[in-house]
Amino acid sequence: MFKTIQNQEMLEVLTVLFIKHGFSTEKAKQLAHVHTENTLHGVNSHGINRVPFFIDQVKRGLVKQDMEAQKVEGFGSIERWDGNLGSGVINAIKCTNRAITLAKENGMGLVALRNTNHWMRAGYYGWMAAEQNCIGILFTNTEPNMPAWGGKEARLGNNPLVISIPRKKGHIVLDMAMTQFSFGKINQYKLNGEQLPYEGGFDENGNLTKNPEEILTTKSGLPIGYWKGSALSMVLDMLATLLSAGRSTYKLGLDSHEYGVSQVFLCMDPNTFHDANLQENLMEEIIAYTQDITPMEPNGKTYYPGERSLANKINNQKNGMQVSEEIWNKITDLANK
Amino acid sequence: MFKTIQNQEMLEVLTVLFIKHGFSTEKAKQLAHVHTENTLHGVNSHGINRVPFFIDQVKRGLVKQDMEAQKVEGFGSIERWDGNLGSGVINAIKCTNRAITLAKENGMGLVALRNTNHWMRAGYYGWMAAEQNCIGILFTNTEPNMPAWGGKEARLGNNPLVISIPRKKGHIVLDMAMTQFSFGKINQYKLNGEQLPYEGGFDENGNLTKNPEEILTTKSGLPIGYWKGSALSMVLDMLATLLSAGRSTYKLGLDSHEYGVSQVFLCMDPNTFHDANLQENLMEEIIAYTQDITPMEPNGKTYYPGERSLANKINNQKNGMQVSEEIWNKITDLANK
Repeated sequence: MFKTIQNQEMLEVLTVLFIKHGFSTEKAKQLAHVHTENTLHGVNSHGINRVPFFIDQVKRGLVKQDMEAQKVEGFGSIERWDGNLGSGVINAIKCTNRAITLAKENGMGLVALRNTNHWMRAGYYGWMAAEQNCIGILFTNTEPNMPAWGGKEARLGNNPLVISIPRKKGHIVLDMAMTQFSFGKINQYKLNGEQLPYEGGFDENGNLTKNPEEILTTKSGLPIGYWKGSALSMVLDMLATLLSAGRSTYKLGLDSHEYGVSQVFLCMDPNTFHDANLQENLMEEIIAYTQDITPMEPNGKTYYPGERSLANKINNQKNGMQVSEEIWNKITDLANK
Repeated sequence: MFKTIQNQEMLEVLTVLFIKHGFSTEKAKQLAHVHTENTLHGVNSHGINRVPFFIDQVKRGLVKQDMEAQKVEGFGSIERWDGNLGSGVINAIKCTNRAITLAKENGMGLVALRNTNHWMRAGYYGWMAAEQNCIGILFTNTEPNMPAWGGKEARLGNNPLVISIPRKKGHIVLDMAMTQFSFGKINQYKLNGEQLPYEGGFDENGNLTKNPEEILTTKSGLPIGYWKGSALSMVLDMLATLLSAGRSTYKLGLDSHEYGVSQVFLCMDPNTFHDANLQENLMEEIIAYTQDITPMEPNGKTYYPGERSLANKINNQKNGMQVSEEIWNKITDLANK
């Protein structure tokens, strides 16, 4: 069922594929890099597995190959950009870079982006900011896929939020959606014939359930922390929508396909204070404290956000990535035909 | 058991009390205002009920009456301040105001504050930013009171996070700690002889429980969304600690009394884009959508973050606040003796 694919092979196949589907060589390389990197980090669901769906969106005209984000207006450290319905990945790279530049100039920079598309793995842009020595706080809205607490219908997006902090021994990267489990993960449990370890969404009667099939049917995930994740999702949608003057989760739900989402890219330069060593020590102190524990499960441990993602990358760079044969065949078909 | 206290009476009694305990008239008025306002909003636990504890901290010398926050350094839109162990409330007001000023000048402003003290209700500063037409993103670290996911011992704070957005018909103010239930709330369930509606912490064997007594014994609350709230708490602690070069949850846990915490005050000026009406409409659209639902419970409804807090204030301004007679007697004693 699984095939081992090396980094370089995936990059090459994907670059050909994206060029074949109308992207410039430069854009195709960026896209190939992001899908490969996401797969290296072990997030196949937002890396290689997502490529056929992305190509489908391109074919439907929801993602415009020749468009990209442009600045609309700005003042001081805040700017508003329009994604012109180009690739979400390419737009997000551009806006993360812009927020980093603003942060280096002003200590802090924010780009609010409207009319963009799915950026695949949110965490990618957090790693990107951290690689350039910036703190990143990034989020997107999505189509409705979880209820506002107290109501039955899906009225909120799972609105992934990333917070990243640069660190010499491995960046801190929190990448979390507002649902307890991502729909990709829920699908994985279904494919494995397993129940979720905790309640993760609602069944048709509005009751909480661990059954992945029921949740995939209702498309109604559980907000993290019940009313708290519901409220956090709502304010993230508001911030992304207001700051970009873009489309809200409400608007995204009016169409049968998600496109033209709103996002926020906020970067800060911690070197503003010229004490990188002190900051590094403070961070190590926090990590050491959270890892000095009696494990909940035998042989268990705690992880800092980003720790396992980095370990996956190191392992996959060495041993190759495990990719579904079915998905890989689809992709080589798309690249060759 | 409860007494009805009017706004003006509480302000007067508290002002006398704070002056009597060594605060200047100006500071005493600010403190009285914040404790009263928090009680008007229905959050007695972080308003009037907290006054005796605060006075106790002053007496122990953990809060210095004559000290307040001062700027240490800054660049562009980011500044670092030192709270000099003054009152957390007075420091937080000063730093919120400073972040608002920076936001009006640069579109966005951030103040990282170290060596400050408990700011009582986090939401207060969110309402304050919104009243001055700013978006506020504010958080604090705390002493350890919940486990890092995967470990048994408390290694993380519940680190309250506030996100506020100005709105004509009532500001949006999310004010949430990273534990599923506050310890004040858990205590309330215990006093009422009730179980929690959802699992809210750990028992002595490290199992999740709805029993409030067990959680109050272990002092180990459940992070919202299990591993997600754990990770979010950790990054908020890191951000507050690194940006302020202050004390982390780890450091706060070394002392038997919590003092000298680290906080972040980030404000944005949404009027940067000169389209307040459009933004207002986008917000109403989101709220209307999340409230157009089939309720989960008969006669239930959904609320936007801040909705119930505002309703409490309007009600309490009209009818007076319901205050525990025991607490009120303690306070009048402290003010008179």
